[in-house]
Amino acid sequence: MLLSETAESIKNMEIRGAGRIARAAVEALADYARSLDVSDPAVFRQEMKKAAGILIETRPTAVSLPNAVRSVIRALDEFESVEAAKKAVLSRAAEFIQRSEHAVERIAEIGARHISDGDILLTHCNSEAALGCILEAHRQGKDIEVYATEVRPRGQGLITIRTLNEAGIPTNYIVDSAVRHFINEVDMVFVGADAIAVNGAVVNKIGTAQIALAAHEARTNFIVAAETYKFAPRTILGELIEIEERDPAEVLPREVAEELPYVRVRNPAFDVTPADYIDLIVTEQGAIPPELAFTVIRDYLGWTIEEWR
Amino acid sequence: MLLSETAESIKNMEIRGAGRIARAAVEALADYARSLDVSDPAVFRQEMKKAAGILIETRPTAVSLPNAVRSVIRALDEFESVEAAKKAVLSRAAEFIQRSEHAVERIAEIGARHISDGDILLTHCNSEAALGCILEAHRQGKDIEVYATEVRPRGQGLITIRTLNEAGIPTNYIVDSAVRHFINEVDMVFVGADAIAVNGAVVNKIGTAQIALAAHEARTNFIVAAETYKFAPRTILGELIEIEERDPAEVLPREVAEELPYVRVRNPAFDVTPADYIDLIVTEQGAIPPELAFTVIRDYLGWTIEEWR
Amino acid sequence: MLLSETAESIKNMEIRGAGRIARAAVEALADYARSLDVSDPAVFRQEMKKAAGILIETRPTAVSLPNAVRSVIRALDEFESVEAAKKAVLSRAAEFIQRSEHAVERIAEIGARHISDGDILLTHCNSEAALGCILEAHRQGKDIEVYATEVRPRGQGLITIRTLNEAGIPTNYIVDSAVRHFINEVDMVFVGADAIAVNGAVVNKIGTAQIALAAHEARTNFIVAAETYKFAPRTILGELIEIEERDPAEVLPREVAEELPYVRVRNPAFDVTPADYIDLIVTEQGAIPPELAFTVIRDYLGWTIEEWR
Amino acid sequence: MLLSETAESIKNMEIRGAGRIARAAVEALADYARSLDVSDPAVFRQEMKKAAGILIETRPTAVSLPNAVRSVIRALDEFESVEAAKKAVLSRAAEFIQRSEHAVERIAEIGARHISDGDILLTHCNSEAALGCILEAHRQGKDIEVYATEVRPRGQGLITIRTLNEAGIPTNYIVDSAVRHFINEVDMVFVGADAIAVNGAVVNKIGTAQIALAAHEARTNFIVAAETYKFAPRTILGELIEIEERDPAEVLPREVAEELPYVRVRNPAFDVTPADYIDLIVTEQGAIPPELAFTVIRDYLGWTIEEWR
Amino acid sequence: MLLSETAESIKNMEIRGAGRIARAAVEALADYARSLDVSDPAVFRQEMKKAAGILIETRPTAVSLPNAVRSVIRALDEFESVEAAKKAVLSRAAEFIQRSEHAVERIAEIGARHISDGDILLTHCNSEAALGCILEAHRQGKDIEVYATEVRPRGQGLITIRTLNEAGIPTNYIVDSAVRHFINEVDMVFVGADAIAVNGAVVNKIGTAQIALAAHEARTNFIVAAETYKFAPRTILGELIEIEERDPAEVLPREVAEELPYVRVRNPAFDVTPADYIDLIVTEQGAIPPELAFTVIRDYLGWTIEEWR
Amino acid sequence: MLLSETAESIKNMEIRGAGRIARAAVEALADYARSLDVSDPAVFRQEMKKAAGILIETRPTAVSLPNAVRSVIRALDEFESVEAAKKAVLSRAAEFIQRSEHAVERIAEIGARHISDGDILLTHCNSEAALGCILEAHRQGKDIEVYATEVRPRGQGLITIRTLNEAGIPTNYIVDSAVRHFINEVDMVFVGADAIAVNGAVVNKIGTAQIALAAHEARTNFIVAAETYKFAPRTILGELIEIEERDPAEVLPREVAEELPYVRVRNPAFDVTPADYIDLIVTEQGAIPPELAFTVIRDYLGWTIEEWR
Repeated sequence: MLLSETAESIKNMEIRGAGRIARAAVEALADYARSLDVSDPAVFRQEMKKAAGILIETRPTAVSLPNAVRSVIRALDEFESVEAAKKAVLSRAAEFIQRSEHAVERIAEIGARHISDGDILLTHCNSEAALGCILEAHRQGKDIEVYATEVRPRGQGLITIRTLNEAGIPTNYIVDSAVRHFINEVDMVFVGADAIAVNGAVVNKIGTAQIALAAHEARTNFIVAAETYKFAPRTILGELIEIEERDPAEVLPREVAEELPYVRVRNPAFDVTPADYIDLIVTEQGAIPPELAFTVIRDYLGWTIEEWR
Repeated sequence: MLLSETAESIKNMEIRGAGRIARAAVEALADYARSLDVSDPAVFRQEMKKAAGILIETRPTAVSLPNAVRSVIRALDEFESVEAAKKAVLSRAAEFIQRSEHAVERIAEIGARHISDGDILLTHCNSEAALGCILEAHRQGKDIEVYATEVRPRGQGLITIRTLNEAGIPTNYIVDSAVRHFINEVDMVFVGADAIAVNGAVVNKIGTAQIALAAHEARTNFIVAAETYKFAPRTILGELIEIEERDPAEVLPREVAEELPYVRVRNPAFDVTPADYIDLIVTEQGAIPPELAFTVIRDYLGWTIEEWR
Repeated sequence: MLLSETAESIKNMEIRGAGRIARAAVEALADYARSLDVSDPAVFRQEMKKAAGILIETRPTAVSLPNAVRSVIRALDEFESVEAAKKAVLSRAAEFIQRSEHAVERIAEIGARHISDGDILLTHCNSEAALGCILEAHRQGKDIEVYATEVRPRGQGLITIRTLNEAGIPTNYIVDSAVRHFINEVDMVFVGADAIAVNGAVVNKIGTAQIALAAHEARTNFIVAAETYKFAPRTILGELIEIEERDPAEVLPREVAEELPYVRVRNPAFDVTPADYIDLIVTEQGAIPPELAFTVIRDYLGWTIEEWR
Repeated sequence: MLLSETAESIKNMEIRGAGRIARAAVEALADYARSLDVSDPAVFRQEMKKAAGILIETRPTAVSLPNAVRSVIRALDEFESVEAAKKAVLSRAAEFIQRSEHAVERIAEIGARHISDGDILLTHCNSEAALGCILEAHRQGKDIEVYATEVRPRGQGLITIRTLNEAGIPTNYIVDSAVRHFINEVDMVFVGADAIAVNGAVVNKIGTAQIALAAHEARTNFIVAAETYKFAPRTILGELIEIEERDPAEVLPREVAEELPYVRVRNPAFDVTPADYIDLIVTEQGAIPPELAFTVIRDYLGWTIEEWR
Repeated sequence: MLLSETAESIKNMEIRGAGRIARAAVEALADYARSLDVSDPAVFRQEMKKAAGILIETRPTAVSLPNAVRSVIRALDEFESVEAAKKAVLSRAAEFIQRSEHAVERIAEIGARHISDGDILLTHCNSEAALGCILEAHRQGKDIEVYATEVRPRGQGLITIRTLNEAGIPTNYIVDSAVRHFINEVDMVFVGADAIAVNGAVVNKIGTAQIALAAHEARTNFIVAAETYKFAPRTILGELIEIEERDPAEVLPREVAEELPYVRVRNPAFDVTPADYIDLIVTEQGAIPPELAFTVIRDYLGWTIEEWR
Repeated sequence: MLLSETAESIKNMEIRGAGRIARAAVEALADYARSLDVSDPAVFRQEMKKAAGILIETRPTAVSLPNAVRSVIRALDEFESVEAAKKAVLSRAAEFIQRSEHAVERIAEIGARHISDGDILLTHCNSEAALGCILEAHRQGKDIEVYATEVRPRGQGLITIRTLNEAGIPTNYIVDSAVRHFINEVDMVFVGADAIAVNGAVVNKIGTAQIALAAHEARTNFIVAAETYKFAPRTILGELIEIEERDPAEVLPREVAEELPYVRVRNPAFDVTPADYIDLIVTEQGAIPPELAFTVIRDYLGWTIEEWR
């Protein structure tokens, strides 16, 4: 697929999901590098940066996109020949794809170690990484039980309980607002993340912050499972992670809304959980406290503040 | 209506709602007193107690019922003649009915004084008393705005926003789990109560406790609006207020549930908000801190520990 | 002095200070009762209520005024003759005056018992009652040390340190914003009150709430010294205690302010300390937790919600 | 037994235990009243007060003593004849003794209602009232488990686990410092009280406050079981409850201590748990929040501030 | 200017301000390197260290001084020739100066991204970096409002409100102790820093810690704007940042103080805000959580523990 | 000593104590490297890894063991000859041993800087590093006082007070449960650590977490003194630090236990203190906030996640 085609597919959302978007962009860059027939390393770098720019522009708020692109084209000026640079691009691309594919698996492996026989867990929304930890613990023969929330307005909890049911894990299904009522029976909360800011604040499905608060109040551990490419580098520059507000009709049918002129639906897709309420973030690079998000961005994702300017 | 008819109507839920139940029981007692043709005051007292017992048994978990009955038949042994006792019963019944009918109005009047021009309020579920405060403030010309929650699983929020829309009050409609996301924009929370325990803990619609916690975290005032007959006297004796779990089908359609043998729906109708997170309870007897629930039970509802034993 | 003269003197602030206003009003009522030459007890009651209304209207926000008046003219319909009623008014007036005059003394006596040899205390503003406790402990020979704040903008701290210096108590004088810096060295905070709401919230000199918060953070006891007539009965009805904003020139000289059109001085005289941060309120009726403000209003000040309506 | 003999027996600790001391004093007063051969009610009152004083002086720090005495001789000036007064003294004495004997039983009954099937409880020290609640729940067939602490330095935990073992209740025995480690497995804490101050602070065996803090951190309920005569009336006057320091040899053998001149043993017998960490106090007069201690002192124990002065 | 002259000018405070001191020292070192006519790299290193020592000694408590010097002379033993080492010194010096000059600008740029249209901000004292963020947001056309404190005893708030007024930003001017009263209306606090310790604790103008506490209580964001050379490397070694106490006459006129022998003025210039109350530190190297101060010291300032010993 | 002998000695606990175990293992590795007569660097590496594996297996839960081994054999594939690799092993071993021996000394030096003249400190258990800080401050002539706990069940507090007594430091000896009672008199807590997890949670003697909680409640600083080899690298992989339960007879004599069939002794040796309650960890590499444990593991101990897999 040509770079422009990949860009288009990401833009029109044919390619969706943080992981898939990232891998598609990286593949497109590798293909593009392969196809570039230039001899001046500076020109090669320039072309690659241009290509990177096109990909990043397709979904300005997707955190995984710049991270993926960055992992492939960073520090190309270290190479003195186009060959060397191209080789680096290709091997980094391959590495990124492999690492990304294995990330959830590794997270599951690490996260599952926190789960003990007899534990009661709670999860919110439908995070592959968070569920991975729970399923892996179950696979290891640990006797566990889960509380899963409904996740208004889109009801992703239903997918979650289907998955848990299929695995044969006893599951309690509750409305979102019942979390505090049950939290004292819960040993540990596992959720995923849409993006993680430099100060360790986690952007995730609306309702997550309230669960974290209730868990904190009851001294219940709260663990976030997230691939490193969910860490948002531009938050180092002060950029805020935009909280998208979705279609009001998800919450209130349009025909009802029309009868209620004084009523406005507010439908934020995400909320922000402060680092204070998070005990651990499990990434494929290991478990860290949320305060080390900066280190992940700099040391694992390879971002430096200079590059952006 | 005969006492037995009223009892039956309460039992089969033809008569519903804390206030209506209370008033019907009181009326039935008054009628019964009128109809009693005895001359020995002791017999009169005994008969009245028997009648009271029948009424209370109809709905053992309704807090308003024993409170109402108690307000009419307490301390009948103070009277030396059947006449005097009967007169007391009738006048107390009339007084209870009148006070109960005016209670919401008085609560609205008191609660509205806490609302200032420009305030943004949040309410949960569909409490007549809590909405009363908000509507009264609006009626007084105060420029206010409201956040109202959806209230899963039964969606009482829809009734609430219809009422607010009708009054012309700008209202934001949000899912239950979005409260923490918006609470920093809110100046004050108003909710109702299903029952209030002796230590000031408030039993109310599931989700209330989570809102109270989020309000507390953000230093936002949290006010409960409740008629005094919502205070649960038997909690003085250590009786717990039972948290009813309702039909799972409210949360998950039966046909879906049947496919998911490992999934159990937990559907508690209420939760418990601790006194620590409540700034004030507004009753028709005035505003009090939650810690004074005991005083309300003893001094306004007239219960003493001796009577129960 | 005639009732109208007293009313005038209170209105034009010739008579000032919560205690003095209260006693003047009570004396005026006693004089008025004495002068009333009527025989119908109902007429007597009506006249007394009219007089009370005139006095209360003179300073609608002074909490001590309705409390004082109320203590004299409450429940006059219990009396079947003008004589009896008049006698009650006079003896209650005398009692109020005596109790009010001794209140600070009794508070000092009770409060001083909380102070141990070697204690380091902190006080804010210039409260007669709070200073009374400290001075009494010193008089009893306890070896104490005090931190006193400056109290911007009016600098009442200067009066406080003069008083403490005169008594020979070692005193540290600090700016208002230095309290958290020193609070770990402090064993106990004593402040006064301008008014106390039904839920135990204390209205006092601006800065008090911040001190209470810092004391709470450091597990330092925070004690309020206040005469019972500082408790605000109408807060039971939901009435808010108005936080007066004073002359901007107290903070910023008018000539400077005039050069700064975008700058507005906000100069609130008081702030509100929540009951959560108050360990004890010492009144002349004994020490109570703040949550019992309602009880003080009802049982010691004699207010009932019915009377106001 | 003559009054002087009882006084002596209390003084030299032949009579011990809050309940026994109280009942002995009350009996002594009743006997003394019976024996008084006077006709002037004022003389009778004076004699009774003198007797009361003698008894109270025997153990100035025992809270139950003045409470018991007070319950018998309060308001004797209401009676116009010696007969009536004597009769009141005798019936009050009988009532006090009976109530006191039944107090633990009633507390157990009320407290047990808070315990549900499957609950895990924790207790500290060896409180008859707290254990009563646990044993009663067990007797009712509830399936419970208990954590009991060792209670250094005197090891009262050993008596507690013997009692629990005898009842056949599965019990975990832990060192005092392990409470926070296990508290997340605990559903509810039950402890007794040595004294309760007017602001609801509970004086109890050293270590109680630390347990309450750990329970609060983990949102675990903390319940105090205490007879009303444990409430300390003189704390209304600001009197502090003295925290006795016991024999250092309880902690460090004298011969070891002698080798360590720079080491001083501090051995406080009690500590103070603030009302904030207490969910409920269960008394024989019903369950109350700690903030209502004042009300217990005034309304159930019958103390008024005037009497003390 | 000769090294000795610069050292003298810093010592006698002709050169003042963290930034200016740092740049002067760096320039002096560059000049000194240029003037050194040696051929042995070891000798060059030794001389440069000596020079560095002289400069650092001039103001032992200024955090910016060792940081600046360190950034220029670190790791000189990596160079095998004097030329290379000298070149490194000169380019590092130039880089430091440039970076330092642009630091506030970059901080403003990053910090302003956190400010949204309609935000109400609060600032304390007169920090160039903190004000930079606010002014930059205003320049970008964001509609903001500011609360600025008076800043006793030296009144730097006056300079702040003049700056804000000049920029045309609506500003509220309040006394220091009024912060908690208004904090619920504030969306974000911006302050500067005098020094930042290795655990993220921020030393800043007295009063800052109290504001941070009040912001934390109300869930209001608290952001510190600080150049990286404000981070105090020697705190890694356990060195405490000294809190200077200034002239008492700033608080109490000498003539008044003289009349008050028992009164001592305590006038600390700074206080310490714990990392717990700080959401973000904005540096010219990006925004970080306070816990990463150690990383800034090690990775950006280049300090290693070995060097100090 | 042969590798197998050292391994045996560690296994059978002839060699004990985190530091001694670590140094013995390192020495064994050095000896083994010296004795290896191979020429292929790959074989050398393989042999060394095998040897490392044998040593680590001896005590799978001792954190210092893998850290020590790792510091010696990490990244051996960087070397192209056996000589170079062997040389590296030997010099790293020497360095580790020296650093380990000096670690406590350096910690003492850094920690002592936090102690000021007049400070009152508290310590728990018998940590060489924590006591080192206190003793060093005393040696420097600072006038300090210490509270030391008894440390049930093994009574290590006795060793601590003997050490403090010998140094002539005034010491208060208290039971473990009395900490909260005295904590307001304490300026700073110093404890050691058995292991530190990647999120900064500290595993230490049972009771530590409760002290940290009480210190936090009272705004008292809580400092952990720990050598870097106490940081547990495998917690990055999610491995939990096992909390060993020791012999019940330490708590309850076996003969008593046998009479109590319903009683089970729970005797955990350690508990977990969350990072939130720790102000600083003092290591020989400098003081850090607990959140930087990850950085210590990666940057000072040299672990990377890849190596483990």
